[in-house]
Amino acid sequence: MSLATDLLAGNRRSLARAISQVEDGGPEARVLLAALYGRTGRAHVVGVTGAPGTGKSTLVNALAKAYRAEGQTIGIIAVDPTSPFSGGALLGDRVRMRDLAGDAGIFIRSMATRGSLGGLARATADVILVLDAAGFDRILVETVGVGQAEVDIASAAHTTIVVEAPGMGDEVQAIKAGVLEIADLFAVNKADREGADHTAMALQMMQGLAPAPTGHHGPRSASGHPEPGAQSDGSWLPPIVKTVATRGEGAERLRDWIETHRAHLQATDQLVRRETARAAAALDHVLRDALLAAFLTRLPDGVLSQTTEAIARREIDPYTAAAQLLAIST
Amino acid sequence: MSLATDLLAGNRRSLARAISQVEDGGPEARVLLAALYGRTGRAHVVGVTGAPGTGKSTLVNALAKAYRAEGQTIGIIAVDPTSPFSGGALLGDRVRMRDLAGDAGIFIRSMATRGSLGGLARATADVILVLDAAGFDRILVETVGVGQAEVDIASAAHTTIVVEAPGMGDEVQAIKAGVLEIADLFAVNKADREGADHTAMALQMMQGLAPAPTGHHGPRSASGHPEPGAQSDGSWLPPIVKTVATRGEGAERLRDWIETHRAHLQATDQLVRRETARAAAALDHVLRDALLAAFLTRLPDGVLSQTTEAIARREIDPYTAAAQLLAIST
Repeated sequence: MSLATDLLAGNRRSLARAISQVEDGGPEARVLLAALYGRTGRAHVVGVTGAPGTGKSTLVNALAKAYRAEGQTIGIIAVDPTSPFSGGALLGDRVRMRDLAGDAGIFIRSMATRGSLGGLARATADVILVLDAAGFDRILVETVGVGQAEVDIASAAHTTIVVEAPGMGDEVQAIKAGVLEIADLFAVNKADREGADHTAMALQMMQGLAPAPTGHHGPRSASGHPEPGAQSDGSWLPPIVKTVATRGEGAERLRDWIETHRAHLQATDQLVRRETARAAAALDHVLRDALLAAFLTRLPDGVLSQTTEAIARREIDPYTAAAQLLAIST
Repeated sequence: MSLATDLLAGNRRSLARAISQVEDGGPEARVLLAALYGRTGRAHVVGVTGAPGTGKSTLVNALAKAYRAEGQTIGIIAVDPTSPFSGGALLGDRVRMRDLAGDAGIFIRSMATRGSLGGLARATADVILVLDAAGFDRILVETVGVGQAEVDIASAAHTTIVVEAPGMGDEVQAIKAGVLEIADLFAVNKADREGADHTAMALQMMQGLAPAPTGHHGPRSASGHPEPGAQSDGSWLPPIVKTVATRGEGAERLRDWIETHRAHLQATDQLVRRETARAAAALDHVLRDALLAAFLTRLPDGVLSQTTEAIARREIDPYTAAAQLLAIST
C-alpha cells in the first residue's frame, strides 16, 4: 500500500513519515502531495502569532483542548523561524506533549527553519496539506513574532490570531501597527495581569485609527465602538478576546470566534479569494523551481560555475549574465 | 547624462534617486545595476544585528563616527523586517539624522519590507551595490532580530556583528544558539549596566561549547580561553567587545576588530568564497525571475488563471498543473 493510501486510510504512523517526506522536499514529496491534494481543502487553518513571552504555546494548547471538548480533531504545527540552526523547538514540544499526550485526536509537529525562510513557508504549507488530507478538522499553526516571516506563513491560514500580553514594552507596541493588517482575531493573553485592560484598549484604539472599510455602518456598542465580527458591508472587525491560557480561561470564546470567522469567510467570497491566492502562490513557486531545474540541465557543463566566478570577479553583472545564459540555451 | 554616470561622478542627489529606482525593481533597476556592477566590490560590508532593545542603532551611529574620525566614508542601511507595512523606520531615521546630520561623508537609508522577505533581502543587496559603486568605504547594514530574515540579509555582509545587552531575558538567551554561526564579532552593548560581565561570559562559554575547528591550536589567554581573532589554522574566533554606545565607548575597538577581520578575509580564501556564494545567489534569483517571465509570455491567454482556479477548487494539484503547463509551452 502506498504512503498516500495508507495516510488517507487513517494510519497515524504513516502521518509522521508523510510529514518528514514533505519537509525534505524532492520528487517523492511531489508525488505524495499530488496524490493527497484532491483530499485537501476541508480543514480550517488557524494561524496563531505573537511576540515571545505572550504565552502563545499555552494558548494554542488551551484552544486545542476547547476544540477537543467538542469532538473535533486538531493538528498543531509549531513553526519557529527564529531558530534556524538549533533544535530549539524540541523542548517546547516535550512540554506540550506532557500536556496533551494520550489524545489520538491531537497531532503535534514542530518545524524549524531549514535553509531559506521561503523554504520554511513552503514546507509549512505542504505540512498543512498533509494534515488536511489526514482528516484533521482544525489545524493550528503557531509562529513566533510578527515579522514578514509570520506574514508569509499566515498567508496559508484562513483565520489569523495575533496574541498580545500586557506589559510587553514599547517596541512591541510599535510592531503592532503592521499586525492590524493580518489579524482576524486578537487575544490579550495573561489577562489576569495588570495592564490587560490597557492593552485591550490600545488595540481597540488602533482599530479606530485604521482606515474604516468604505460604507462602514456596523452596529455600535454602548462604548461607541462598532460591535466586532462581521459587519453589514461584508467586512470583518477583529474581536479582542481576553484569555488566561494557563487556566484555559477565554479559550472557548476564542474557539467560538474562530468558528464565527469561518462562517463569515464561507458566507462571503473571501474563502474563494484566499484559496485562489494560495493556489497562485503555490503554482508560482513550483513553476520557478521546475523552470530553473529544466534550464540548468540544458546548460553546457561548467558554464554556470564559470559565469558565477565571472560575476564574483565583477567582470559581468548578474543581469547581463542571466540574459547571456538565456540566449545560449533557449 | 545617465543616472549611472551621474552617480559614479559623485553626485549625491543622484544617489537617493538610484536607490529608489533599485528598491522599486523592474527593467530600469536592472539597467542601472548592470551599469554600476563593474564599479562595485571595493566597499567592506558590515552587518549589525541583534534583538530590539540592545541599542543597535546607537552603536551603528557610534561606529560610523569612529570610522569618520579616520576619514572613511560610511553608508548606513537600516533594514526592519518586522515592519512590513508601516513606515516605522522613519522615526529611527529622524533620530539618527539629528545625530549625524551635516556630514557629507555619511549617507543613511531606511528600508522596510515590501512584499516578500526574499524581496527585502534582494533589495538590500542591490542598495549595497549602489552605495558601493558610489564610493562609500564601509557600508553598515543594521537589521532587527536574529531570525532567518537576518541570516539572509547578513549573507550579503563581509563582517557580521551580533549585538547583545545585559538582562535581555531567557528567550533572547535561547535565540543565541543560532547566532553563534553567523557572528564574526560580538558586541556586548550597555556594558555599564549590571550583568554585562555575565553576558560576555555566557557568550564566551557558548563559544567554548561550540565544536572547535579541526586542528585548533590557537594561543590561549591567561584565562585558558584561546585568544580571539585569526587562529593559526586559518579559522576565526569571534572577539567579544564591550561597548557603551551612548557614550561612544568601545566603538573604536569595534572598528579596529572589523578591520582585522577584513584583513583576515583577504589573507585567506574566505573573501573569494563569500563573493562567489553571493554571486551564485544573485544569478539564481535573476534566472528564476527571467525564466518565469519568459515562460508566462509564451503561455496562451487565460491558461494561467484557469489553472490557478482549478488548483483552488482542488481539481488538480500544483505539481501536476505545473508539469502540464510546462508540457504545453516548452
